[in-house]
Amino acid sequence: MSNSSTTTKNGVCDVKKKTVGSFRKLLFNGRLDLILEAHNGLSARIVEETGYPAIWASGLAISSATGLRDCNEASWSQVMEVAQCIADAVNIPVLFDGDSGFGSFNNVRHIVKRLSHYGIAGVSLEDKQFPKMNSFVSHEHALSSVDEFCGKIKAAQDSKRDDDFIVIARTEALVAGMSVQAALKRAEQYYEAGADGIFIHSKETDGFDILESSKCWAGRCPLIVAPTTYKNVSTELLQEVGVSVYICANQMMRASLLAMRNAAAQIQADNSICNIDNNICSLSEVFQLLNYDELKDAELIYARQES
Amino acid sequence: MSNSSTTTKNGVCDVKKKTVGSFRKLLFNGRLDLILEAHNGLSARIVEETGYPAIWASGLAISSATGLRDCNEASWSQVMEVAQCIADAVNIPVLFDGDSGFGSFNNVRHIVKRLSHYGIAGVSLEDKQFPKMNSFVSHEHALSSVDEFCGKIKAAQDSKRDDDFIVIARTEALVAGMSVQAALKRAEQYYEAGADGIFIHSKETDGFDILESSKCWAGRCPLIVAPTTYKNVSTELLQEVGVSVYICANQMMRASLLAMRNAAAQIQADNSICNIDNNICSLSEVFQLLNYDELKDAELIYARQES
Amino acid sequence: MSNSSTTTKNGVCDVKKKTVGSFRKLLFNGRLDLILEAHNGLSARIVEETGYPAIWASGLAISSATGLRDCNEASWSQVMEVAQCIADAVNIPVLFDGDSGFGSFNNVRHIVKRLSHYGIAGVSLEDKQFPKMNSFVSHEHALSSVDEFCGKIKAAQDSKRDDDFIVIARTEALVAGMSVQAALKRAEQYYEAGADGIFIHSKETDGFDILESSKCWAGRCPLIVAPTTYKNVSTELLQEVGVSVYICANQMMRASLLAMRNAAAQIQADNSICNIDNNICSLSEVFQLLNYDELKDAELIYARQES
Amino acid sequence: MSNSSTTTKNGVCDVKKKTVGSFRKLLFNGRLDLILEAHNGLSARIVEETGYPAIWASGLAISSATGLRDCNEASWSQVMEVAQCIADAVNIPVLFDGDSGFGSFNNVRHIVKRLSHYGIAGVSLEDKQFPKMNSFVSHEHALSSVDEFCGKIKAAQDSKRDDDFIVIARTEALVAGMSVQAALKRAEQYYEAGADGIFIHSKETDGFDILESSKCWAGRCPLIVAPTTYKNVSTELLQEVGVSVYICANQMMRASLLAMRNAAAQIQADNSICNIDNNICSLSEVFQLLNYDELKDAELIYARQES
Repeated sequence: MSNSSTTTKNGVCDVKKKTVGSFRKLLFNGRLDLILEAHNGLSARIVEETGYPAIWASGLAISSATGLRDCNEASWSQVMEVAQCIADAVNIPVLFDGDSGFGSFNNVRHIVKRLSHYGIAGVSLEDKQFPKMNSFVSHEHALSSVDEFCGKIKAAQDSKRDDDFIVIARTEALVAGMSVQAALKRAEQYYEAGADGIFIHSKETDGFDILESSKCWAGRCPLIVAPTTYKNVSTELLQEVGVSVYICANQMMRASLLAMRNAAAQIQADNSICNIDNNICSLSEVFQLLNYDELKDAELIYARQES
Repeated sequence: MSNSSTTTKNGVCDVKKKTVGSFRKLLFNGRLDLILEAHNGLSARIVEETGYPAIWASGLAISSATGLRDCNEASWSQVMEVAQCIADAVNIPVLFDGDSGFGSFNNVRHIVKRLSHYGIAGVSLEDKQFPKMNSFVSHEHALSSVDEFCGKIKAAQDSKRDDDFIVIARTEALVAGMSVQAALKRAEQYYEAGADGIFIHSKETDGFDILESSKCWAGRCPLIVAPTTYKNVSTELLQEVGVSVYICANQMMRASLLAMRNAAAQIQADNSICNIDNNICSLSEVFQLLNYDELKDAELIYARQES
Repeated sequence: MSNSSTTTKNGVCDVKKKTVGSFRKLLFNGRLDLILEAHNGLSARIVEETGYPAIWASGLAISSATGLRDCNEASWSQVMEVAQCIADAVNIPVLFDGDSGFGSFNNVRHIVKRLSHYGIAGVSLEDKQFPKMNSFVSHEHALSSVDEFCGKIKAAQDSKRDDDFIVIARTEALVAGMSVQAALKRAEQYYEAGADGIFIHSKETDGFDILESSKCWAGRCPLIVAPTTYKNVSTELLQEVGVSVYICANQMMRASLLAMRNAAAQIQADNSICNIDNNICSLSEVFQLLNYDELKDAELIYARQES
Repeated sequence: MSNSSTTTKNGVCDVKKKTVGSFRKLLFNGRLDLILEAHNGLSARIVEETGYPAIWASGLAISSATGLRDCNEASWSQVMEVAQCIADAVNIPVLFDGDSGFGSFNNVRHIVKRLSHYGIAGVSLEDKQFPKMNSFVSHEHALSSVDEFCGKIKAAQDSKRDDDFIVIARTEALVAGMSVQAALKRAEQYYEAGADGIFIHSKETDGFDILESSKCWAGRCPLIVAPTTYKNVSTELLQEVGVSVYICANQMMRASLLAMRNAAAQIQADNSICNIDNNICSLSEVFQLLNYDELKDAELIYARQES
């Protein structure tokens, strides 16, 4: 008698499996795709409704939203609860920013097991030490040894519960002041260790180092970049040099910050909420985005007999 | 030898005690004050920096940010982890939206104990049944019996760990379609049961019911309102009829939603982040708000000997 | 190059899928099986190593271990974090005690989605109201309406992410003082609503009501019992009347309580730990149970290059 | 009208403040006291009812109970949720095992802020690197530099929210194979940095190193030991050489493990729970320990009007 429910359930099940798998396709589809940051379920919904093919669950954005600094002040389990809420909220794949793995290879194993349970599509691990400091903050960045980091990549690959789960190796070599050659050497070793894709990070504003790195990489495996600082380098050029994924890494959090500042100031200036409605979404837009109508429909199915 | 540290610590300690106490003062200072919603540590920081005297830790805003609907989809412990992050992030008092208490009087006791541990200034409890539905969603709202709800108010008062912790009784009588008289009768009984303040909620757009209720209440104890729908009723008029606290209940979340939608759309249209920077905060503004400089100073104190 | 890791990973993946599936087989294998309570990762490991085919993640035991009373003092997310630790710790299926669903059908949906993500094999839902009180505590137990509870069963079936996930309907009709006939009528309706198995609970000491119920049920679908109070009814007799699963529902928690009381008293009496070692496990037994050797092996694979 | 409730509340408030303060008194009362491990709310209740003056919230025991290994597999926020449940469950002071601080001085600050909010009496920090390995597992133990660790001690002292919160510095020098002199030198420096007490750890079985260290320390500040391996060294001798606190560090978890193994085996052998009741607590003992009667009393106060 639960035929119809079985059908529904299978549907959901398949959607989730396809979702995780679709991130792998994104990496290998031969063209550049933009993916956008989300830091909670709400921003994730917006990324999905706008039409992006995937979400970047950013460590910077999640910790900032939490009111914490991006230097592992938040625990991995706090961050993963957010990741789980993001995964619960959408049907597009989520790439989780795993920082430097929250400790040793052993912490990486534990985290990847849980992530792949949650239906997260993949993790990005970076070759900094724990606790890390955000790449854009003018601190020195101590990198892991290549061996230590390769161990983490292998550990991640061996711990995933879903074949389609992706492990991205992110090198902070350029951020730490090393040469393009040094960065590429690290990339090569991470690829050998089993990374599904390479994320080369830079905080230069001209993007020369990234363009050069990408050309030299010559498509060995998918390349990921986050052009936060070199935003004027055109998407076409990045595609041309072989970039697969262009991460818009923190713009949703930064958009919310500016808007909330403006709203807080305007309400204070007016000493009233009388003029703010043009600058904020209506409640019905909130309710629509979060699908309150689905709840009404569900009540018809699951609570209809109540009266 | 830890004299200086003791001094610092005492400072922090006193700040937190004063913080909780200052919400009580706000209720009894004889004038109307606006307080603003926050739904995470980041929005809380903005409320504080703008100069608001207190924060409304909104159930609607927190659940929306989480990607969940405001009908107790989030567990009380998930919501309270957010409340704790908010309290950690600011030095102004936080009023926690306790919905209908997440169950019976016994759940209220457990929750209030934890809240008052976290340095939260007070809780608002509403006379709906669990699980509740958001007041602005067109559902019928089943109210608790007066006796059941008075038991929750008493239970909250008896469970707090800090004398200055405030318990607000919120009646949804008007929202549920009852008369002003019925709402006032409930308010009276909640006050008798020990409420420190009364929050009368309405979703009318003209605010007549709130104005009438406030006048009849005649200052028995502090009155709280959230004029989300009757925003055109002037702050002066609300003060005149005796309102103490004017909650701007969800505007930060709604501001962030609109801004994130716009940002997501613009980046998609441009297929690049090249033009978005004018519409979002800079990273250095993020770092300033979250006080990354304090970390540098702290490194001088706690990690100076490292080299 | 990650061939070997892929093999390992697939292994893990298959194990988990088989694990969930094996609980379904347990229900339908035509004989009675004992399953044992666990309330944390440690007790779960013991249940597995002893050779039980499955774990009962008991609400009473989990809340007791947490120091809370079994009347929904713990939030669903706190309990599910424990369930996740249990699932992480073992490779046998876990049946999660979902109490009355932690609210309405909508809460059930949310919870089942998460449970089936974690690799939990199934959920048991009972027809009490929220917040529930433990069945063995002499309180009156208010039951849900049949319609409301059938809605929860359907909601659970439609929300699972894994076809093999099991939904058990537990009726507290006998506990609430209703007749065997009334209990069977509820069971029938829950089965019609989609339950994979029926759990009839009783706190009688002679077990007559359970034996009668089981006979009348006549194998319509798998029957589950927890003979905590009617422990002298033989396993053979229960199998004979058609019981599929015999839940040993709280003995691990109760064993730990007695042992910890004795240990605490002995150490106090001795004013020393000098005589306690015969009455407790050695540290090396702890390390063996939690597989510290695996960590050494893993270090050889993932951290060998460190020197 | 809430006079009586205010009285009750103040009582609770004072109890908690006294609780935290009483741990400081324990350190300075001039005699040796035994304190006992707890790893969850249940074991904490037992420690309290038996009459111990304080609880050791052990990292080994908490992670073992969770099913994880004592090498920082559990996140700090997972462990602190347990600590919070322990503090919620008892009115005796709780000393939290803070391992090596879960990262840098900055993580220490965050953790101490939260701990002192929860009414925890103090933290013990050890001079290992993160992630740590349990001292009794035969691995090499890499220690922090003295400067790094002194920074953590200072950071902890400056971050506490309660003057009576205690910071214990634990040196693993002996465990790491260093000399008594080296251990004492570290102890001296940690004391200079602001530690309220010194915990010297050893895994020798004869206790000579601890006895020698204690004598040389000559009462500079309170000394703490955990004689897990040198259990035959008499309590009197330890008191004589100046030890203030004798931590029974993991016996409750080990007692529960043995008892649960035996119970699991016996039930399996009997294929029934018919003979287990003599070896486990009764349900009414569980209900008494967790104070279910208080709930009945509370219902009379807070829910009496319901009928």
